[in-house]
Amino acid sequence: MEREIVRLRIDLAYEGTHFYGWARQRELRTVQGEIERALCKVLHLSSPARTAISEENFGTEAWKPQLVVAGRTDTGVHASHQVCHLDIPHERLAAAVGHMDAPPVLALERRIQHVVPRDIAIHSVKEAPSGFDARFSALERTYVYRVCDDLSALDPRLRSFVLPISTRLDVDSMNQAAATTIGLHDFGSFATPNPGGTTIRKVKYAHWDRVPSRPLIAKAGGAAPAYETPVAEAGLVCFTIVADAFARNMVRSLVNGCLKVGTGKRSLDWFHSKIEQPVREGSTGPIEACGLTLEQVAYPPDNQLAIRAQAIRAKRTLP
Amino acid sequence: MEREIVRLRIDLAYEGTHFYGWARQRELRTVQGEIERALCKVLHLSSPARTAISEENFGTEAWKPQLVVAGRTDTGVHASHQVCHLDIPHERLAAAVGHMDAPPVLALERRIQHVVPRDIAIHSVKEAPSGFDARFSALERTYVYRVCDDLSALDPRLRSFVLPISTRLDVDSMNQAAATTIGLHDFGSFATPNPGGTTIRKVKYAHWDRVPSRPLIAKAGGAAPAYETPVAEAGLVCFTIVADAFARNMVRSLVNGCLKVGTGKRSLDWFHSKIEQPVREGSTGPIEACGLTLEQVAYPPDNQLAIRAQAIRAKRTLP
Repeated sequence: MEREIVRLRIDLAYEGTHFYGWARQRELRTVQGEIERALCKVLHLSSPARTAISEENFGTEAWKPQLVVAGRTDTGVHASHQVCHLDIPHERLAAAVGHMDAPPVLALERRIQHVVPRDIAIHSVKEAPSGFDARFSALERTYVYRVCDDLSALDPRLRSFVLPISTRLDVDSMNQAAATTIGLHDFGSFATPNPGGTTIRKVKYAHWDRVPSRPLIAKAGGAAPAYETPVAEAGLVCFTIVADAFARNMVRSLVNGCLKVGTGKRSLDWFHSKIEQPVREGSTGPIEACGLTLEQVAYPPDNQLAIRAQAIRAKRTLP
Repeated sequence: MEREIVRLRIDLAYEGTHFYGWARQRELRTVQGEIERALCKVLHLSSPARTAISEENFGTEAWKPQLVVAGRTDTGVHASHQVCHLDIPHERLAAAVGHMDAPPVLALERRIQHVVPRDIAIHSVKEAPSGFDARFSALERTYVYRVCDDLSALDPRLRSFVLPISTRLDVDSMNQAAATTIGLHDFGSFATPNPGGTTIRKVKYAHWDRVPSRPLIAKAGGAAPAYETPVAEAGLVCFTIVADAFARNMVRSLVNGCLKVGTGKRSLDWFHSKIEQPVREGSTGPIEACGLTLEQVAYPPDNQLAIRAQAIRAKRTLP
């Protein structure tokens, strides 16, 4: 029986602390698992218990929502802007309307926004342009890792997404280390290959910055108060890294390496040698997940989506 | 037996979600209770069980740490900058040094920073200037209430200190309401008097603003990435209010009133009448605590601390 399928693009954010990462896992709370459960509820499908949603169940019975994501984040990692897609039969989508006076996609967006748990936010649900694939069409991903190296300015409101450390960081030497990561390298010292995959990636940008203290509110004319509330992130030390894609544990391991340099525990030469000779060792393992946020996934213009997806799919499946 | 007492000024911050407010309470987790417990530990005093720290126990036995705070925050309210003081006998303070090679106050600061739970951050411990009283010397307090009125931009990383609402706010009309709060008023419609106290307060500044979207990092020269991560608070609607002091529930009740105006549920006239005729009603109760943060406590120059404290103490104890 042929069914017409609609591909939806879903933009979202989450606070990763209480998730075992993105990917659906039997008996564990994951972002994918929670959103797929919420979709079942909204679409009036038999809402499976968490234990029943597992890889094996899909395909053996009637249609179930299965998300494809741009960046599979690990346990404890956050996303302020993540993208996934969902292929859904037309008649299933229609079930989202119910008594709502809205087209099906908008109805689904509104309902799902109110059904997901509070540590997930669904920003938008839209019909995807032709050729769009959340994973394979993506051009590049941007991650930011946030550190507080000044206990006298620590803001406990941000503790879920900022790593506190008790040594003041030398940002200049960390930037000398970060500069050596830019370009095409085998990040074997700083990443774990997927089965049959490589740790060769192209880093487009990698830089450490101390967030300047700027007022939260732009100065009003004349009547502003004497005290100006700074942005909550003022003073944090942030690592911004952009690449076409990242190998497993790559960002957190690079951050760990840079922090070793920035706290004087390791030399710049040590870091350089790890980039030059890709050997995974205990000294280059990943740092805590809490400080890491996926901030952006970029896609090409609509008319290049399909070509990009084909190219990446071919590249990633080379022997 | 006469003992020499040192007054310490402690600057701190906390994420209020998991506290039953500032003030020590029998059998409940409070900010004051947790810091006093940490002080007992650091000072090698018999560290009392949480249930044993109660108002009655103090004074009936040997010296125990008792903090005096600038702004007693309610259950769930945060502080990015709070101030308290502690009177401590010289010989007790000396106990903080232990094997540390540091003067007693610095030793206490370092130890207490590592002993408090993760939702409290001790920014500094210093010997207070002469005449300093954390509560009575304070000139003014600044609170900020943060709201997200755009579900398509909600950041779940900030959910502990931002109130999400699903109606877009009319910031201009909220500012017309806020403007009527400035000056000396009886805030009886928007606050609960303390026993024997009044709800007359002087508001110095009250304004709603939408936080502009600015990049987290100031633009680097040339090599900046195409995507600029915005500050996490971009797009939030924030209420900044400054007053000499606040009556109980006053900020949250004013926020609730303004939000009723900003969402079109109540008129500006309604708000004005509540300022003009101070009558506490159900319609003017406090909004959720989560969005509220004490951001700043301001003190006069050192040579005016004692005079200020005397004046305020006299004013607040008038019949």
